[in-house]
Amino acid sequence: MTGQPLWTLQLDRSEVDELAARADPEAPLAGVRFAIKDNIDLAGHPTTAACPALAAKPAGSSATAVRLLLEAGAVPVGKTNLDQFATGLVGTRSPYGACHSVASPAHVSGGSSSGSAVAVASGAVPLALATDTAGSGRVPAAFNGIVGVKPTRGLVSTAGVMPAVADLDCVTTFTTTVAAARPAIAALTRPDPADPRSRPMPPRPPVAVAALMRVVAVPDGEMELDPPHEEAWRAALDRLRGIAAHVVPVDIGPFLEAGRMLYEGAWLAARYAAIGHYLEPDGPHLDPTVRRIVLRGRDIAGPDVFAGFERLAALRAQTGTVWADVDALMLPTTPGHPRLSEVAADPIGVNARVGRFTTFANLLDLCAVAVPAGERADGLPFGVQFVAPAFADPPLLDLAAAWCGEPVVSAPADPGTTLLAVAGAHLSGLQLNHELVSAGGRLAFRARTAPGYRLYRLSGPGVPRPGLVRTGDGPVDGIAVEVWQVPHQAVGALLDTVPEPLGLGRVGLDDGTSVAGFLSAENAVRDATDVTAAGGWRAALATPGIA
Amino acid sequence: MTGQPLWTLQLDRSEVDELAARADPEAPLAGVRFAIKDNIDLAGHPTTAACPALAAKPAGSSATAVRLLLEAGAVPVGKTNLDQFATGLVGTRSPYGACHSVASPAHVSGGSSSGSAVAVASGAVPLALATDTAGSGRVPAAFNGIVGVKPTRGLVSTAGVMPAVADLDCVTTFTTTVAAARPAIAALTRPDPADPRSRPMPPRPPVAVAALMRVVAVPDGEMELDPPHEEAWRAALDRLRGIAAHVVPVDIGPFLEAGRMLYEGAWLAARYAAIGHYLEPDGPHLDPTVRRIVLRGRDIAGPDVFAGFERLAALRAQTGTVWADVDALMLPTTPGHPRLSEVAADPIGVNARVGRFTTFANLLDLCAVAVPAGERADGLPFGVQFVAPAFADPPLLDLAAAWCGEPVVSAPADPGTTLLAVAGAHLSGLQLNHELVSAGGRLAFRARTAPGYRLYRLSGPGVPRPGLVRTGDGPVDGIAVEVWQVPHQAVGALLDTVPEPLGLGRVGLDDGTSVAGFLSAENAVRDATDVTAAGGWRAALATPGIA
Repeated sequence: MTGQPLWTLQLDRSEVDELAARADPEAPLAGVRFAIKDNIDLAGHPTTAACPALAAKPAGSSATAVRLLLEAGAVPVGKTNLDQFATGLVGTRSPYGACHSVASPAHVSGGSSSGSAVAVASGAVPLALATDTAGSGRVPAAFNGIVGVKPTRGLVSTAGVMPAVADLDCVTTFTTTVAAARPAIAALTRPDPADPRSRPMPPRPPVAVAALMRVVAVPDGEMELDPPHEEAWRAALDRLRGIAAHVVPVDIGPFLEAGRMLYEGAWLAARYAAIGHYLEPDGPHLDPTVRRIVLRGRDIAGPDVFAGFERLAALRAQTGTVWADVDALMLPTTPGHPRLSEVAADPIGVNARVGRFTTFANLLDLCAVAVPAGERADGLPFGVQFVAPAFADPPLLDLAAAWCGEPVVSAPADPGTTLLAVAGAHLSGLQLNHELVSAGGRLAFRARTAPGYRLYRLSGPGVPRPGLVRTGDGPVDGIAVEVWQVPHQAVGALLDTVPEPLGLGRVGLDDGTSVAGFLSAENAVRDATDVTAAGGWRAALATPGIA
Repeated sequence: MTGQPLWTLQLDRSEVDELAARADPEAPLAGVRFAIKDNIDLAGHPTTAACPALAAKPAGSSATAVRLLLEAGAVPVGKTNLDQFATGLVGTRSPYGACHSVASPAHVSGGSSSGSAVAVASGAVPLALATDTAGSGRVPAAFNGIVGVKPTRGLVSTAGVMPAVADLDCVTTFTTTVAAARPAIAALTRPDPADPRSRPMPPRPPVAVAALMRVVAVPDGEMELDPPHEEAWRAALDRLRGIAAHVVPVDIGPFLEAGRMLYEGAWLAARYAAIGHYLEPDGPHLDPTVRRIVLRGRDIAGPDVFAGFERLAALRAQTGTVWADVDALMLPTTPGHPRLSEVAADPIGVNARVGRFTTFANLLDLCAVAVPAGERADGLPFGVQFVAPAFADPPLLDLAAAWCGEPVVSAPADPGTTLLAVAGAHLSGLQLNHELVSAGGRLAFRARTAPGYRLYRLSGPGVPRPGLVRTGDGPVDGIAVEVWQVPHQAVGALLDTVPEPLGLGRVGLDDGTSVAGFLSAENAVRDATDVTAAGGWRAALATPGIA
């Protein structure tokens, strides 16, 4: 169909027809054809991971992810090419041949899930399974103008997937729209006793996740993008301002430092642990670049692995503070789009640069969705990714859908609940937040007040508490609040806990609407400290002398 | 006081008096004197970790744990001896001298928190801070007849603690009673931004934790205890039957395999990463055994570290299934109590054996409490430990209190709630459990029904559902149930979701009481499969042909 080496194996028409006949016609993916990256087991067929030496032995059973798609009615049509052992982000490292972008024969397809991305982008199938350790489920989406969904680690079983870095590997999907990904992700998200790293979606994630994502961070400094990428990125930033209520700058330096550990540090030893035994003896069945990279992992010392963990733990804590006030981070999926010739000239360096914005996601336990973001001036597809904390997958899919102009699924508030703006100790992670949680509350969205509010640190003993007051002369960009939905019947008990001079009143929000919220009586703040300039209570607490 | 080398540093009386004068007399630990294991920073004094070369440099600030005890009114009196760099479980590996059990000058004190345990057991202080990576907060408790509380990793900050295996280190307490530990643990349990591994207590732990622990597992096979230990252990088993409603056997093989990885496998490289730079050049300031052990970590290869993680992930999954039906595991804290002379003859082998039952806890992310369990025939103290999943700390303290004949704090049911027995798809981790969770339900306790109930697998499409029926001829030991507390006002909505032939009725429990619960109409089970023999729905689901 494309002339590209995107398949390592295509199923016989008779086998496809037989599988299609067996599918439940009422199932959510009934009849949907899908491709399978060839590091994921399909019963009765070999899993080569693009190493032809592995083509002899058929898999005894299908990977859990494949089985779940089958149970949802989908029909596999073949296994797809990849950077060997899923080690690479370019799509050129395969004895089965190099893929290229569907938009340009001279530019790489991205990898490692090259064949799966090309299969979807070229229209061969509407759905493909891929994997993502360093960005393999996102980079090829960007280079081929499609959607790549990388769920939180552990939500989708990796049982039956050949490991690359077992602690980090994720099963992902490629589709042309977010809407097409939704039923596949829904079918795949299932705890699996066969995968020791399987994690159920917790009733409450460790980081508070808003049902509706309105606050999006973007990198604050120089991004060192290729010029056509830079131009497309500026257009994407403009577009984001039409979708997000607030776009805030953030230093992504610590994120990028974490990401560099994947190929330059301790985690290369994990790759050697998983793949090393395939690398001797050498031969034409092995990609020389993959072999060279993975063999480096052999010489990493155990103590250096733990030193790497130590550094990563610090970076995870440092980057984690971002999510207190931000729903998601938007980044270009890659800093540029290399030509096949550039990769051939510097296979390791070019690959590392391609992954600059994707490698940190799994190390920092984040979920991500890569979406198309128009075209560059030269006609190549441009892509951005939205990244959010672990278990923020459902609202992140909605943010990606909003970006793509597709329907959003989740409601800002459930029936039978009251929306309540909180600006102080009830914020996520602060001392009184448990009152909202134990009342059955959920974070509906992050917002800022309408102009005209001021924030004070009330005097008095105990937990430092702020007072939000509508003085009429507050800053234009308002005060940071969280809007929680609380069951109607819990509001009364909550009101009973509010001490003078605080009360519940009406709080105007950034979008012109208003909700109930904690306010202070204006006469009570005469002796209080005005902390309005901090912009919000969390920022005020970080200011010396307040907390 | 004891003639033992338990202190590395005692504060001047004037400094203690000054600190005592500064303490808030209303604070929960007002005036309580405490000792600090000398791998934990106290501002203005050196942290030696029992390495005299480190005695020159005072710590700039106190560890978070020390600061929290000071804020709670407690008063530090000194720093205590330990196995050097907290590497050991015997208490003999210190240039400051070897401690011994308060009950016998010939028997070891246990370690690494030797001085802290002896300080509490000898009456020098009522409270001491210790640490526990492999069992250092539990072994010396057992060997000195006191209580050692090892919280879930991350609940108590390790900022300001010299790392041994940073991912696993815990700050712990020694006291003579559980009641004395409670206010200290309450003061210490605080999220800490300064510790990247700090974890808040989640509103709902990943593993369902019962508010009241009634089902306790014990090892099912040969334990290879020293003869006097064996006899004391049998007495402890008898005593347990008077405290737990159900004592069930469990294979602890996979737990022990995980534990062996700490000193024999990958994690030794973590110790080298943390301590290695102190080990050259050699000298009398270094304990030769500690040095020999930790230097071994230098030669562990990075890929072998990841292979170890792989194995641990599998063992964590395998052992994790135990907690579906069991609240806690009781074990002897150690398999024997060695003499100082035995340690001298085989310092590494004897130490490894001492840790057989403690080393797995932190690797498998468990919390634990070590409690006295009477004396052996030779008069030495005997100790057992209760172990439970991460974040089960509050009910585990209650179980330990019940063991010690002390008051239990948590109530089996909160006011305004209904107790509801569930036997099928509403059990923790099964398909309909989310209905209880989203209704604001909490697991109150695990139980079995009274005699006379039978369990059926109902026919019909969808989720396999059981029917619990009071036939009058069921097994004497009943059917496994979970009793959930559900807010009164949520019961109606829950009842609306119950399809025929199920309904809510009265279910008799093992202790002669009865609660509301899901029951099936008897006429509906005529064509159903009787799965009573499995003993419960979870066990039935694991039986081929049922699910």
